[in-house]
Amino acid sequence: MKKLINAVDDVLAQSLDGFAAAHADIVVLGEERKFVRRRHGRPGKVSLVSGGGSGHEPLHAGFVGLGMLDAACPGQVFTSPTPDQMLAAMEAVDGGAGTLLIVKNYEGDVMNFAMAAEMAPGPVESLILNDDVAVENSTWTAGRRGVAGTLVVEKVVGAAAEHGQSLSELRKLGERVNAHTRSMGVALAPCTVPAAGKPTFSLAEDEMEMGVGIHGEPGRRRVKLASADAIADEMLTAIVADLSLKAASEVLLFVNGFGATPLMELYLMADRARRWLDAKGIKAVRFLTGSYVTSLDMAGCSITVSVLDDHARRLWDAPVHTPALRWGA
Amino acid sequence: MKKLINAVDDVLAQSLDGFAAAHADIVVLGEERKFVRRRHGRPGKVSLVSGGGSGHEPLHAGFVGLGMLDAACPGQVFTSPTPDQMLAAMEAVDGGAGTLLIVKNYEGDVMNFAMAAEMAPGPVESLILNDDVAVENSTWTAGRRGVAGTLVVEKVVGAAAEHGQSLSELRKLGERVNAHTRSMGVALAPCTVPAAGKPTFSLAEDEMEMGVGIHGEPGRRRVKLASADAIADEMLTAIVADLSLKAASEVLLFVNGFGATPLMELYLMADRARRWLDAKGIKAVRFLTGSYVTSLDMAGCSITVSVLDDHARRLWDAPVHTPALRWGA
Repeated sequence: MKKLINAVDDVLAQSLDGFAAAHADIVVLGEERKFVRRRHGRPGKVSLVSGGGSGHEPLHAGFVGLGMLDAACPGQVFTSPTPDQMLAAMEAVDGGAGTLLIVKNYEGDVMNFAMAAEMAPGPVESLILNDDVAVENSTWTAGRRGVAGTLVVEKVVGAAAEHGQSLSELRKLGERVNAHTRSMGVALAPCTVPAAGKPTFSLAEDEMEMGVGIHGEPGRRRVKLASADAIADEMLTAIVADLSLKAASEVLLFVNGFGATPLMELYLMADRARRWLDAKGIKAVRFLTGSYVTSLDMAGCSITVSVLDDHARRLWDAPVHTPALRWGA
Repeated sequence: MKKLINAVDDVLAQSLDGFAAAHADIVVLGEERKFVRRRHGRPGKVSLVSGGGSGHEPLHAGFVGLGMLDAACPGQVFTSPTPDQMLAAMEAVDGGAGTLLIVKNYEGDVMNFAMAAEMAPGPVESLILNDDVAVENSTWTAGRRGVAGTLVVEKVVGAAAEHGQSLSELRKLGERVNAHTRSMGVALAPCTVPAAGKPTFSLAEDEMEMGVGIHGEPGRRRVKLASADAIADEMLTAIVADLSLKAASEVLLFVNGFGATPLMELYLMADRARRWLDAKGIKAVRFLTGSYVTSLDMAGCSITVSVLDDHARRLWDAPVHTPALRWGA
């Protein structure tokens, strides 16, 4: 295992300390590193709290700040945070208007957030995100997995929360965005969890895992490496079929790197994806290209398509000021 | 070679097309893809033009926009752009106040930018950047290499240009920032140039290249993989000695990933680096952490320290609106 680390047990703590120091203008690291919270909260606003296993950076802590999350709980690598962490986060950012929990659909996360919700300091609702069209059930998931589309939900719902929407309005909005957001991924090379010390799966020199999950979970099939165009086309075909996208739809196109894939390749994928959509009469009116929902050092990418009606587009464009996503603020 | 590409010859064009489409609000791709220019220029302002081999994305095209570059010329991967490209870029963004060329110190770039300067549409000055303290001469360089510190110069000088400083003032400012900015890198795994199809160098499972260049050029020595702390300490010792940094100095700490290194590891390195500096009485007052000056899919990182006086800090903090760096605008 070749990584820039000291001891396996210190990786998360040292990384969080560096993150909190680098972004001290935006975030505060909670006691015992249970959560990362927004430094400048806004009383009277519904609190958005998310979290999950670490190793997907900048998700989730990188999205804490104005216009997005109020707090994020980092678990150990690829391991759910505990209900205790979630409760501490909810209490730290409670603004008196309730808490919306944003949960990727993995059994550990769903169970722990449900336990935390029972202890919540006030009204609480949960959003379970499941944007991955690749497979129905998976290694750690009953139903579909929550993957890169999580960013889109956190951004859009975060903007609406900033505008003062109520807890139930935000939950409904989040459910709608989740339903209008679909993703699929491909891996060219596996990731290595520090505590394991060896790759989570293996791929031959000419193979790829089509439909891979963000922890390296199996996808639809393991096949020979194909061209970027063929890969993009297969992913988009699955995504668009699932969205029942109509011609003349306007969408956000999000090409997400898994950690070890150069930006040059991600833009190349984005180019093919927008042309493919265009040929179907679907217009990509917003783009996001980069490594935002990662899987440690996995090579590959995912494509996310999110339907943007006028309301969602305004919320996507609204100011955001977080460590990893920033515009208009 | 496992990459998300189609044909080797199409990689750059397809990637640039995707980049230009994704950031059409900020940039325009020039004819024959000779350059990327700012969409909304400002007449009467000195133009900042940079460029270099591709494969370092988001550098340079990702830094075109308000408060940074006016144009960037992408060469083929790890290959200088041509004087013809540079001339076309200079002409496209000429605002009547002269052009400042920002050039990383590699023989091909220096020669081609010098040829372009002779044909410039108006007054022209050049900045040659050489922030890498690792080695004196290198594979493609007489003197020191220009590496991640380039971003700092482009940001600070770009802000000053936006404020209306003159060509000679900007050149002097750039020289001062370059002199106050030092970097060093380490590679844990090599990169693969698409046209070559195989890694540019090889490292054993327990080796690293200390002092590596951004094209995988040899560094100071090839040694056994060390801890993150030991790596950071060695790089900072070399950097700080070279800067003749005094206690109570205030600096920008920039931990830059080479392309395949997870953000989690970069923040861990940033944490050690700020603690190391702090122990010497040097205060990191600004941070940048991420993969901004990359080497395709090389694993590893560089550390850059830039001394920030009040003037430089204000310019660093000034608004910037580019595809890869954005704040305050």
